Amino acid sequence: MNIPESSLPRIVIIGAGFAGIALAKKLRNKCAQVVLIDKHNYHNFQPLMYQVATGGLEAGSIAYPVRKIIHDYKDYYFRLARVSNIDTKSKTVSADIGELTYDYLVIATGSKTNFFGNTEIARNSMQMKTISQSLNIRSLILENFEQAVLTKDTQERNFLMNFSLVGGGPTGVELAGALAEMKKAILQKDYPDLDISQMQINLIQSGDRILNTMSEKSSVNAEKFLQQLGVNILKNVRVTGYDGRTITTNSTLCIESATVIWTAGVMGALPDGFEEHAIDVRSKRLRVNEFGQVNGHTHVFAMGDIAQMESAEYPSGHPQMAQPAIQMGNHLAENLERLMAGTQMKPFGYFDKGSMATIGRNKAVVDLPKLHFHGFFAWFVWMFVHLFSLIGFRNKIMVFLNWMYNYIWFDREGRLIVRPFKKKVFVSFTSDEV
Amino acid sequence: MNIPESSLPRIVIIGAGFAGIALAKKLRNKCAQVVLIDKHNYHNFQPLMYQVATGGLEAGSIAYPVRKIIHDYKDYYFRLARVSNIDTKSKTVSADIGELTYDYLVIATGSKTNFFGNTEIARNSMQMKTISQSLNIRSLILENFEQAVLTKDTQERNFLMNFSLVGGGPTGVELAGALAEMKKAILQKDYPDLDISQMQINLIQSGDRILNTMSEKSSVNAEKFLQQLGVNILKNVRVTGYDGRTITTNSTLCIESATVIWTAGVMGALPDGFEEHAIDVRSKRLRVNEFGQVNGHTHVFAMGDIAQMESAEYPSGHPQMAQPAIQMGNHLAENLERLMAGTQMKPFGYFDKGSMATIGRNKAVVDLPKLHFHGFFAWFVWMFVHLFSLIGFRNKIMVFLNWMYNYIWFDREGRLIVRPFKKKVFVSFTSDEV
Repeated sequence: MNIPESSLPRIVIIGAGFAGIALAKKLRNKCAQVVLIDKHNYHNFQPLMYQVATGGLEAGSIAYPVRKIIHDYKDYYFRLARVSNIDTKSKTVSADIGELTYDYLVIATGSKTNFFGNTEIARNSMQMKTISQSLNIRSLILENFEQAVLTKDTQERNFLMNFSLVGGGPTGVELAGALAEMKKAILQKDYPDLDISQMQINLIQSGDRILNTMSEKSSVNAEKFLQQLGVNILKNVRVTGYDGRTITTNSTLCIESATVIWTAGVMGALPDGFEEHAIDVRSKRLRVNEFGQVNGHTHVFAMGDIAQMESAEYPSGHPQMAQPAIQMGNHLAENLERLMAGTQMKPFGYFDKGSMATIGRNKAVVDLPKLHFHGFFAWFVWMFVHLFSLIGFRNKIMVFLNWMYNYIWFDREGRLIVRPFKKKVFVSFTSDEV
Repeated sequence: MNIPESSLPRIVIIGAGFAGIALAKKLRNKCAQVVLIDKHNYHNFQPLMYQVATGGLEAGSIAYPVRKIIHDYKDYYFRLARVSNIDTKSKTVSADIGELTYDYLVIATGSKTNFFGNTEIARNSMQMKTISQSLNIRSLILENFEQAVLTKDTQERNFLMNFSLVGGGPTGVELAGALAEMKKAILQKDYPDLDISQMQINLIQSGDRILNTMSEKSSVNAEKFLQQLGVNILKNVRVTGYDGRTITTNSTLCIESATVIWTAGVMGALPDGFEEHAIDVRSKRLRVNEFGQVNGHTHVFAMGDIAQMESAEYPSGHPQMAQPAIQMGNHLAENLERLMAGTQMKPFGYFDKGSMATIGRNKAVVDLPKLHFHGFFAWFVWMFVHLFSLIGFRNKIMVFLNWMYNYIWFDREGRLIVRPFKKKVFVSFTSDEV
């Protein structure tokens, strides 16, 4: 990888997500050479990806060049690479661009969509874990409408105008809300030759409530908001198959849907090379101790979505969200310093600041540790927190102005099919980059 | 194409570029059914495309949804389609989505890159006529630098950091200037492990001056500006080949260059079906009379880049730029009205407002009919005119703010490899959409 030798110990961080960037920033000037590896040359702000998918924001507004973050840090290197294997014996990382040895290794590779082994669903449905995938969803929504205007066959039209979101977590809920607003504000105007009232948005949840990691009050309010927007909420329904045309479920219910977006689960994006005892089989996450060290290793750490730090309060690890990742990144910087200095590391403690989800214009739900609220104020808080959390002054301004514009004009001008999805779907099976 | 029958005559416009949109807007409420066809669902502002290619602007800021322009016009239809053939006998347009008959047909398909039959150059070099192609250039520039940091071989590094622009017209000049500014402001900071002074930007022009459609004074000044920015200007050099590694020329000069962007010529993007006498063989443009009617046809028109309206002043047709296209679109709306009303059409007269090119920060050249000027004021005028010409309030704001940001901070945050180009170069040979 052409990294110069250094007299300082080398810390290799794999992944420039919330955890990786938090750690990299804190390690600045800390008597170590740092190599940050990611398969993209940008950090992206996952919580707003659904707005890229629905044309409300441009991709560039929620992504930030990694090199810009670290360019004036001393003895820091970024490498654009896909890591394939870790050899903890020889302390070597293998990637598509070569190999690299480390003194300390931090795995922050995040999570990817979990189809629970159902290859048919994986092949036919959309996911939204990368910017490319978000842009694919955007293209597909619009391509379906462009196709719907071409046919007189009502059944075919309804099929093309049927959108199904599998999974009632924040991503599914936020996408459903955004699609419902797109229906009213954009699609109705843009496609006067279609009967847009026939557009159906289904939110399919296997459990008995949506947003089941939030308070019951928030679940109820989110559901109410979605119903106001005309979203069909199907609870206690488990999707068992999707052949590109028909969704089958564990009940007699079948849905003809041209677009299925799968947000029903994630699993660790695990590089090869770890022993069985280090991995949680079900979640594909790396089991780490309270210091973040991967089971059985002293110089290998994991943090963020990929790390499963089991505790009394979080028996199956922390929630796979931005907050635990950022806090782990910050904490690990201090622990690495302690480890390099030969002093005792400190256990990680997660401070739960709460969680929130937005459903649409003036509609959000917020759970603070001791307070749950919803509606306009919650929506305002949601916007403020997300704007504040974005990296970069330009991105903040761009997102803020787009939101203002979209709010005032009921519009989303990002409805551009820059890279058609349907035409080259054949490539998408071989690469998540298309 | 599922267009309803109408009692009004049907005008089919192929192409939503400057000419097509100008015409479509003017035809509003003019006793005709209008069908606008384009292979993209957006109009794009070609003059700023080089800023998308060099990371200064996001693609969404220079593109505008076609449906939004026409959505409240009565009896107007948009179809996303690639037209393959025109049958003027049966008055039928054939496209990938089906056929459509017309009463009046307007060809406004614009132009595409002309490699003058050199397939080797066509295969190995980049072009910049669509947003996808601009984004490919952006990715390739950055991918080359990411690759350059991986090698210790100086020759290989220099090869990867060598950028050659073939063609000294406005596109080549503006790209050269933008690349030179990227070198200084971005690449030098982002790649501290590279010796960026080794990055070479070559502007190769077959004639003896760049910007040869502008005044001699402007050519000289543009050349001076480019030299200040460190661009190598090679005049009287004709590129004869490029195998992906080495550029060969009509002299002994050879250049090892990883990136060749071809802006040395365009030709009409001509649909099949026209007789020989209607086509100019060399330029692949449709020969039209002073009313815009294609040679030998009364109900078929052409305008913009694809139209060659020969006159004493413009013996080989108007320059292929935005201004003639917009003026032809506006003029043809009136002529179509006259034709439908059975009155005499009026000949088109082009009012040359002048031309301009920007080279970089505070550096531009402007030719007005009676005045040529350059420098800061010219640059200011260039910005004002381009901002003013963009369609859409949001786009104007976004471009303005990005320019402000880039100017103040010497930055271009669009340096994101969202769709890697090198990895899937194999697809790009089969589609211009990749």
